[in-house]
Amino acid sequence: MTSTSLNNTVPAPQSTPSYADIQSIVANDFEVMDKQVFGSLNSKVQLVMSVSQHVINAGGKRMRPLITLLCARMFDDNPSEKAMHLAAITEMLHTATLVHDDVIDESGQRRGKPTANATWDNATAVLVGDYLIARAFNLLVGFQSLPLLQVFSDGTCDIAEGEVLQLQHQHNPAATEEDYLRIIDGKTSRLFMMATQGAAILQDKTEYMTALGDFGQHFGNAFQIIDDVLDYSGDSEVMGKNLGDDLAEGKPTLPTIKALELLKDSDTEGYEQLRIAVQTGKTPNAEQLIELVRSSGSLAYCKQRALEETKLAQDALSTLPDNRYRTGLYQLTELASARLV
Amino acid sequence: MTSTSLNNTVPAPQSTPSYADIQSIVANDFEVMDKQVFGSLNSKVQLVMSVSQHVINAGGKRMRPLITLLCARMFDDNPSEKAMHLAAITEMLHTATLVHDDVIDESGQRRGKPTANATWDNATAVLVGDYLIARAFNLLVGFQSLPLLQVFSDGTCDIAEGEVLQLQHQHNPAATEEDYLRIIDGKTSRLFMMATQGAAILQDKTEYMTALGDFGQHFGNAFQIIDDVLDYSGDSEVMGKNLGDDLAEGKPTLPTIKALELLKDSDTEGYEQLRIAVQTGKTPNAEQLIELVRSSGSLAYCKQRALEETKLAQDALSTLPDNRYRTGLYQLTELASARLV
Repeated sequence: MTSTSLNNTVPAPQSTPSYADIQSIVANDFEVMDKQVFGSLNSKVQLVMSVSQHVINAGGKRMRPLITLLCARMFDDNPSEKAMHLAAITEMLHTATLVHDDVIDESGQRRGKPTANATWDNATAVLVGDYLIARAFNLLVGFQSLPLLQVFSDGTCDIAEGEVLQLQHQHNPAATEEDYLRIIDGKTSRLFMMATQGAAILQDKTEYMTALGDFGQHFGNAFQIIDDVLDYSGDSEVMGKNLGDDLAEGKPTLPTIKALELLKDSDTEGYEQLRIAVQTGKTPNAEQLIELVRSSGSLAYCKQRALEETKLAQDALSTLPDNRYRTGLYQLTELASARLV
Repeated sequence: MTSTSLNNTVPAPQSTPSYADIQSIVANDFEVMDKQVFGSLNSKVQLVMSVSQHVINAGGKRMRPLITLLCARMFDDNPSEKAMHLAAITEMLHTATLVHDDVIDESGQRRGKPTANATWDNATAVLVGDYLIARAFNLLVGFQSLPLLQVFSDGTCDIAEGEVLQLQHQHNPAATEEDYLRIIDGKTSRLFMMATQGAAILQDKTEYMTALGDFGQHFGNAFQIIDDVLDYSGDSEVMGKNLGDDLAEGKPTLPTIKALELLKDSDTEGYEQLRIAVQTGKTPNAEQLIELVRSSGSLAYCKQRALEETKLAQDALSTLPDNRYRTGLYQLTELASARLV
């Protein structure tokens, strides 16, 4: 089946379905999963419980577990509870990385809610993040599946390495698109891959591992590029963060990397301003810098790259079982793309 | 075999053997292990490698891997390289917890060497600590042993919980000896248990799991109590940290907990001073407070408790195979006790 025939299986949408629409395809599973994220915390240490519950409560849309649930149903319309449980674990791992990210970035808020480091302190956030990582592995061992453990332990290394690589390139205006792709491949796309491939292992459909890996990787890349574009073009109230946050942290994301490349020959002064902003993380003229990135043509390039990654993710779906759950995965990628317009 | 007969198998030492003496029993294994701690790091991210190598280089005596090596040889005089590999992993896990501990405690030095957070920054230390945890699990999966993964993933949860519990009781002068024991059971003794039990699983000697667990737990308890006593009585140059560090961090360790109990009725003013020091972590009169703890009789109690724990650890050895490696484990406990006098 080609991607064209896949497109034919998806009713040409007048408008992109909402996240709630997609979630409703696996509504019952989602509800079970959501309870299990909390239910899987069983520490006798009160502070572990209160912080963990806080950060899981403050969680977002649970997109990674939704991906796992859709994959599991795509392979088996009556999957065991293991799928919900694995989905909960992906969310737990994701939460752990966010808790540590917020320490790193000294963030006071995430999605408009106070972070763990702001509510308690850095020490608590570091250690509860450690607990969540350890507990996620502990729960994974419960599946008694070595292939699953291999995928998740390989993946967790890659995630940590992606995060360190991002730190290594902080304040580096010479970072390239290739560096950026290596960073997001680790910090973002890897967990998307784990969320999909984990479901295949549980359902004993390992013949789809490559296709799922491709889907997860490209969808993750698209998702992160879009997220980074929105840092320069989004609605800060909707995003729960300020425009230009990445720049103020000296993070060379694709919008900045491409803008620097485009400005280098056309606008020496603008290039130098942006270069120094990345290098120092000092942006007293933030609005002007954001406008500089916008007017450079960089965002159009990033959007194009995001669409290419989305297309690759959608193509990867074409070899997977053709049913409404696969359509749900396809719609998720469309929905992510739609954040661009 | 009783502990008395065990004592008979150990040549009554004129003086406690040195750490190097004990290490020499497994000299070759130790060398292989030490190389593997570094060799197991295989990140392509330069910053991951340099920080990991720095913290592993700055490591201590590698006592936990030494325990694993002695246990493995105790069961099999010609163990596979797996034992050295597992020993290296216990050191990696231990290093990860130290890296995060130093962030928590804002430590600039450990054992006289600059910490990762001081050499780089907190962000780097948090993320490289995460990598070391992830990599340790990744390597553990390589053994393809679910029982081993169960012990290590249960244990890593307990370690993280012990660390959070310690934080929960920071600045709490009402912490009890029971609270303290729960803390050290997690943060210290659990890894000693994993180091011993892991070897038994690898060597297929699971009939010794209980005895090894008892040994690890009580030895760990003794070791931590002694460490905490030395914070009030040790030679700061030898220890690589200052006397009274725990008090200055508001950590209620056994010496303080017992001193508060003893002073409560006999020295109301001293009690109040110490209580406030724990509560605030402010110790402008540190020398006076240390003297207060010393003269309260608390340290004698702590030493007695450490000796009891040491004795329990030694008793647990009595059911294990009687050979020179078991003697090495016994001598390790004696050596730890000797730090008290």
